[in-house]
Amino acid sequence: MDNAPRGSELTALRDLIRQFVAERDWDQFHTPKNLATALCVEAAELLEPFQWLRTGGASELDAAKLDEVRHEMADILVYLIRLADKLDVDLVKAVTEKMALNRAKYPADKVRGSARKYNEYHD
Amino acid sequence: MDNAPRGSELTALRDLIRQFVAERDWDQFHTPKNLATALCVEAAELLEPFQWLRTGGASELDAAKLDEVRHEMADILVYLIRLADKLDVDLVKAVTEKMALNRAKYPADKVRGSARKYNEYHD
Amino acid sequence: MDNAPRGSELTALRDLIRQFVAERDWDQFHTPKNLATALCVEAAELLEPFQWLRTGGASELDAAKLDEVRHEMADILVYLIRLADKLDVDLVKAVTEKMALNRAKYPADKVRGSARKYNEYHD
Amino acid sequence: MDNAPRGSELTALRDLIRQFVAERDWDQFHTPKNLATALCVEAAELLEPFQWLRTGGASELDAAKLDEVRHEMADILVYLIRLADKLDVDLVKAVTEKMALNRAKYPADKVRGSARKYNEYHD
Repeated sequence: MDNAPRGSELTALRDLIRQFVAERDWDQFHTPKNLATALCVEAAELLEPFQWLRTGGASELDAAKLDEVRHEMADILVYLIRLADKLDVDLVKAVTEKMALNRAKYPADKVRGSARKYNEYHD
Repeated sequence: MDNAPRGSELTALRDLIRQFVAERDWDQFHTPKNLATALCVEAAELLEPFQWLRTGGASELDAAKLDEVRHEMADILVYLIRLADKLDVDLVKAVTEKMALNRAKYPADKVRGSARKYNEYHD
Repeated sequence: MDNAPRGSELTALRDLIRQFVAERDWDQFHTPKNLATALCVEAAELLEPFQWLRTGGASELDAAKLDEVRHEMADILVYLIRLADKLDVDLVKAVTEKMALNRAKYPADKVRGSARKYNEYHD
Repeated sequence: MDNAPRGSELTALRDLIRQFVAERDWDQFHTPKNLATALCVEAAELLEPFQWLRTGGASELDAAKLDEVRHEMADILVYLIRLADKLDVDLVKAVTEKMALNRAKYPADKVRGSARKYNEYHD
């Protein structure tokens, strides 16, 4: 997909999405605000099959629901990649940096086994 | 995903996240339902800086807001990769398949320049 | 709240919100789209304190979290009332009508004790 | 809420919803977490018809979309009232208190005509 010595998965998907959008002349609708809105709508559609589950484990979803979930996950990644394209964000770099920040905010020896938010921790 | 000599970006991020979670013993909180919930919360946090904008173009965001947006995008990808890990979803494959479905649902010659939903199109 | 023969709670709140917005000259930002966006952002903020809970029962929230939840619920109602004001929607009438539709979609004898979606029910 | 001769709108809706839930034996699914999740899903469904609009004004929605929007607003209020019922929250009191807090956080003479967040204001 990428002609570079080793292509990137996300770059290949970005190009696939770019082509899809160009063929439909949909770039005009893709302001960052609209893309963030669409991403949020898809995230809620992902959440929808889980809403009444008791434990929320994978075993509570049947095959049809899992397939729906998989498609919603794809939609989310599509809009995320598209938004990154419009805002010149390198997603891999952004995650790597954010994970470093998370390591600093949630030191393993302070938060082990607890889901409380980082700002609730005290020495 | 990455049986090739070179590793995949998403696989590398998945492993980074796995390690972060393991060090904190947070896997116990990572039911698919909770991860989908967290992803939805992050998607709304991404949307938040856009909520009162008029056009929603990138130029309406200052540098601080863009940095915030970048971090929220990272959070979304982190939870998406983590959920994919828990549900054994291959994200690249899921997007590729979903884009093929989208091509069938939104034929370029029917929808060009219009954002109406696919089910509003008629022959 | 209303001194009228019988005032409406929601009308009183609508007027309180109208005044707050007018004093700040914020009506210019209150397009229906922006209000729907703000409502969605607040709904996710309501969800946030629940995201890592196991059972999701009220007993898992401490007093501070319950207060946060209460404030987010207020924010949601504020934006809902404001959006209804802008779109001339009578919320009480809308709920009454929707509940009648729900009664038809989810007949009690078909759905008792099950949370499956209405479109998954068959005779 | 309604110890007066006349009942309150929100109390009447609460009772309507209670009856609907009881007839279906759905209380077992109505943990606060699940209700907050359902509310968030409905908020995103409300947002969905707005996602690709340019201005987001009411005139961009046709009659069918407006009807959809009205129904989603009803769903949101239903879940909000139900959650308030489960958590013993008086919604009218909560909004009144939150609006007083908002008045303190966003003094009219400081924020007039600007949508920046309260924490971005300085003397």
